[in-house]
Amino acid sequence: MIDAGENRIPPSSLTVGEVGEFGVIDRATKGRTQSENTILGPGDDAALVAAPDGRVVVTTDMLVHGRHFRLDWSSPVDIGRKAIAQNGADIAAMGARCTGFVVALGCPADTPVNVTDGIFEGMWREAGRAGASVVGGDLVESTALVISVTALGALDGRGPVLRSGARAGDVVAVAGVLGWSAGGLAVLQSGISGHPKLVGAHRVPRPEYEQGVQAALAGATSLTDVSDGLLADLGHIAVASSVDIDLDSGSFSISDEMNSAAEELGVSPLSWMLTGGEDHALAGTFASAADLPDGWTVIGRTTDARGAPTVTVDSRSYSGPAGWTSFQ
Amino acid sequence: MIDAGENRIPPSSLTVGEVGEFGVIDRATKGRTQSENTILGPGDDAALVAAPDGRVVVTTDMLVHGRHFRLDWSSPVDIGRKAIAQNGADIAAMGARCTGFVVALGCPADTPVNVTDGIFEGMWREAGRAGASVVGGDLVESTALVISVTALGALDGRGPVLRSGARAGDVVAVAGVLGWSAGGLAVLQSGISGHPKLVGAHRVPRPEYEQGVQAALAGATSLTDVSDGLLADLGHIAVASSVDIDLDSGSFSISDEMNSAAEELGVSPLSWMLTGGEDHALAGTFASAADLPDGWTVIGRTTDARGAPTVTVDSRSYSGPAGWTSFQ
Repeated sequence: MIDAGENRIPPSSLTVGEVGEFGVIDRATKGRTQSENTILGPGDDAALVAAPDGRVVVTTDMLVHGRHFRLDWSSPVDIGRKAIAQNGADIAAMGARCTGFVVALGCPADTPVNVTDGIFEGMWREAGRAGASVVGGDLVESTALVISVTALGALDGRGPVLRSGARAGDVVAVAGVLGWSAGGLAVLQSGISGHPKLVGAHRVPRPEYEQGVQAALAGATSLTDVSDGLLADLGHIAVASSVDIDLDSGSFSISDEMNSAAEELGVSPLSWMLTGGEDHALAGTFASAADLPDGWTVIGRTTDARGAPTVTVDSRSYSGPAGWTSFQ
Repeated sequence: MIDAGENRIPPSSLTVGEVGEFGVIDRATKGRTQSENTILGPGDDAALVAAPDGRVVVTTDMLVHGRHFRLDWSSPVDIGRKAIAQNGADIAAMGARCTGFVVALGCPADTPVNVTDGIFEGMWREAGRAGASVVGGDLVESTALVISVTALGALDGRGPVLRSGARAGDVVAVAGVLGWSAGGLAVLQSGISGHPKLVGAHRVPRPEYEQGVQAALAGATSLTDVSDGLLADLGHIAVASSVDIDLDSGSFSISDEMNSAAEELGVSPLSWMLTGGEDHALAGTFASAADLPDGWTVIGRTTDARGAPTVTVDSRSYSGPAGWTSFQ
């Protein structure tokens, strides 16, 4: 599965148990270049990362094989990238930039070392895309493949952009794609062929990390990333800010590939865009007079909550499931 | 298993699947008090922690059920405490103080919510003991119980105490207990009764977090925590610093309970102290003229490495296994 041509680590027929804990870590770290945020990288009891304004943004997410990814649907490199991307997107969703990642990996002893090599390669690549690097980690034996990532970030003197800052009369806007990952997952689950953009988006989300800082600089009043589905994640902003949010379905631009995949599967592309998670687009609110940064699209407006805060589409409640939660 | 009298969360007969992701997180965070290091705690996309000198120390460890803990040997509170303790000890081992923890928990949907409540209760308690709090986390479904913790720390302007700073002629010293956890594990594995101190130490290590900062202030030249076994962990210092280390077996004080458990099991207590991990004592080196802080005991000396760096006991190589590694 792993694309050896893309991977800088030579293929191996050994297992993690044969190479051993320190051997795998050595393969994962050897010859890597740390970002300028790293003061001390892997190899000691802990790492040391710059936090220039005297504060550090921190978030963690765990991914479990069979639940959040599948080795028969995604390459190890893709899985490593996805694990970093979903954590890095949470840093961006505070209006911050990524400064470093620590990663913990649990896997069975008979896991091919090609798999762990690929996961770490993907982690390093995506960490670099986010402007940071892997500064430390842990490797343990477990019955199933499990990945835990913690991301660190810097606000460079700005305040964090919270979910609670939206005000009535703000515009709601998004940066990044919506529903692509959900469409790709539906394609994979149904077994139909084609639709490489959607499938690719499911395998590796491409958060636009820099849009978090851009939104903060443009005065975003609230911000989150779309990890559970647009309606669910905007619901968090609505509740935290005590506003109602109404989305304009006409403002969603639906790509040709999404239209064609949805038609083939007999579903509404809008349902993917409203309830599909894992694309890690950024969604937030801005004062109506604000100049939105390039890459942001207005998709709705906020009003004072008239009761329990709601998110509606064309002034009506959306009848499908709102999005992903664990244990559902 | 969970001691309801010690736990501030009311017992429940529900499972994690029944309570749901947000319900479990609510139970874990409600009414908790954040430490003074926390600028923004749980509830948004990420947390914000003070990093007063513009740098943050960071480390991560993953614990897997059946490999690093067992629910039939330890209470959920103990398991939560252990997960925090082993990460906090890594912060101390840099000469730093703990400023915050993020925690990720994976568990089956049929896990009793009493178990997750207990784990989080233990995490909060031990985080408080370390001078910090749980600032954020993640909860996901997995086939086995798995816990991943990331600890943050502050050096308050000091340099990190690395493994590589030992110099020939330094004294080797430890703070905290050695071999208690290994003794407790041997007691549990053999099924003999008694020896509550050792068993308790296996269930919950008690790192002396503040000794990391004390060692740094006293000019420690190198520092690590004893997680894999004294010989293994001092071996990391020997290699990183290019010194040989010789330990004086007569300098180890062996408690009565350890002597009696070892005698009952027919093993050497010294083997537990030299090769047992998980007590998270701190071990390091100091210039021979340094005034050691209270709580530190000299157990050996360093010399220039005469080849590949070695750790010997009474000038002889130790013949037992050196300590723990994953996948062995």
